[in-house]
Amino acid sequence: MNLKEYLSARIARVEAALERWVPAETVAPQTIHRAMRYSLFAGGKRIRPVLCMGAAEALGAAPAGIEDAACTLEMIHTYSLIHDDLPALDNDDLRRGRPTNHVVFGEAMAILAGDSLLTLAFEVLGKLPGASEPVRAKLVAELATASGTVGGMIGGQVHDIEGERQTPTAELLEAIHRAKTGALLRVSVRMGAIYAGATAEQLDALTRYGEHMGLAFQIVDDVLDVEESSETLGKTAGKDQAQQKITFPAVYGLEQSKAMAEQERLAAHAALDPFGDAAAPLRELADFIVKRKA
Amino acid sequence: MNLKEYLSARIARVEAALERWVPAETVAPQTIHRAMRYSLFAGGKRIRPVLCMGAAEALGAAPAGIEDAACTLEMIHTYSLIHDDLPALDNDDLRRGRPTNHVVFGEAMAILAGDSLLTLAFEVLGKLPGASEPVRAKLVAELATASGTVGGMIGGQVHDIEGERQTPTAELLEAIHRAKTGALLRVSVRMGAIYAGATAEQLDALTRYGEHMGLAFQIVDDVLDVEESSETLGKTAGKDQAQQKITFPAVYGLEQSKAMAEQERLAAHAALDPFGDAAAPLRELADFIVKRKA
Repeated sequence: MNLKEYLSARIARVEAALERWVPAETVAPQTIHRAMRYSLFAGGKRIRPVLCMGAAEALGAAPAGIEDAACTLEMIHTYSLIHDDLPALDNDDLRRGRPTNHVVFGEAMAILAGDSLLTLAFEVLGKLPGASEPVRAKLVAELATASGTVGGMIGGQVHDIEGERQTPTAELLEAIHRAKTGALLRVSVRMGAIYAGATAEQLDALTRYGEHMGLAFQIVDDVLDVEESSETLGKTAGKDQAQQKITFPAVYGLEQSKAMAEQERLAAHAALDPFGDAAAPLRELADFIVKRKA
Repeated sequence: MNLKEYLSARIARVEAALERWVPAETVAPQTIHRAMRYSLFAGGKRIRPVLCMGAAEALGAAPAGIEDAACTLEMIHTYSLIHDDLPALDNDDLRRGRPTNHVVFGEAMAILAGDSLLTLAFEVLGKLPGASEPVRAKLVAELATASGTVGGMIGGQVHDIEGERQTPTAELLEAIHRAKTGALLRVSVRMGAIYAGATAEQLDALTRYGEHMGLAFQIVDDVLDVEESSETLGKTAGKDQAQQKITFPAVYGLEQSKAMAEQERLAAHAALDPFGDAAAPLRELADFIVKRKA
């Protein structure tokens, strides 16, 4: 398979879904829709939606309307970036090579734009045209849990904030990662599987893939923060160290971190064995995630 | 009926539901759960959850588990207060007679506590033990739409922020109100009706009740801000005028505003005619809302 073609076809469907669901800039109140769109259409790689679609395809199906479910992951991811960048949190001025949301629209509008994207994600899942109502309810529960405080994304952010004042241990690092970035990557895969009607066994296998791939993703993210420039990353490099964040390089060193990422990539591949050729996109995505430079 | 007894019985069920769904302060990460609970259990009147339960009861049913659905309205209401009070928005230090969330927990944790309550509301609706999956999905779509940017709560907040710089007209006032407080009050009633299996006709009638009652609520809120002290209100009084907010007294004057509230109360009563005695709680609630002093 050609990953580049695969990605561009899937991303085009995700962009179209986002265009459909997010009110246009001409819809009142215009400022909030401009602010939502500014961060949503800022050149994100759409990794989470593509993982969602890839998981559905691994089951042999290419279910209609999956991009509607997939695009809610990008809404959640983008809301978390907008709020993370706020002065009261990471206080970052640069994201994906552009001024952050609050720099352009002010803090009040950035807070509300984040709230709006979070809310819209659930509106879309509640209405999901291509899914039955039971599937809609299941996806809502999955996404909300993965985004929440207990083992979910917000919980990870809080651990992360509080971790700045704690000794970096392997246990703390794993707890932070599993929640902060791991939960949303894992649920991306699970949502695709649920949308496509996975059996319990299939869902388990794809969840294992999601966990290993998610861990690889975070390790590589931490390594890139050390090794790459702000220009390449499109966001402030070296911030982890400056803020004394607990990272894989800080706990394991750079070389061991890279070896761990490779190990996780292979474990992710192994979890896909039952799915044969239909899982080729998920395999290539795991490779892409480990080899990316930004 | 005895409204006081009715309220205390319903509120007890809502408090119990909130206790069940919101992680305890001993659950990690503890800070965020403390912050969520600080604002959630701050002596709110639980008007929205009680309206939800009252609407279900107006249909002759007292469906089991309705308090789980009802308590999500309090989560959304509380998240909106926490974010509204932030320095970047209304910058308020006092709420329900206590220091606001960010004063106690810091801005970062207040932003995340709001995000968490918003997320948890949808987690609860997605899992709603007493409802079928189709009802869960419908409630998610209803609540998200009412909380969103187009005619919903966030849209109203944005109109409100932008309205501070505009001429106060009756049209602008109505648009702000309908979205900012009206949408959530209206959906409180609708969610109860949907949970209880309302017909389209019943849902329409209860929605009309919700709209008139919601308008009465906002007019009275604006009047209280002018007439009552901060001590009575438990929040800073006279802020609307200080911030040049568009309010009913500003557009219509105090006396005409009070007459309008009374008119809306009567219209709310009229919408309940088809439900007979079963709607007695909703009638009393509309009266209570118009006659309250805080």
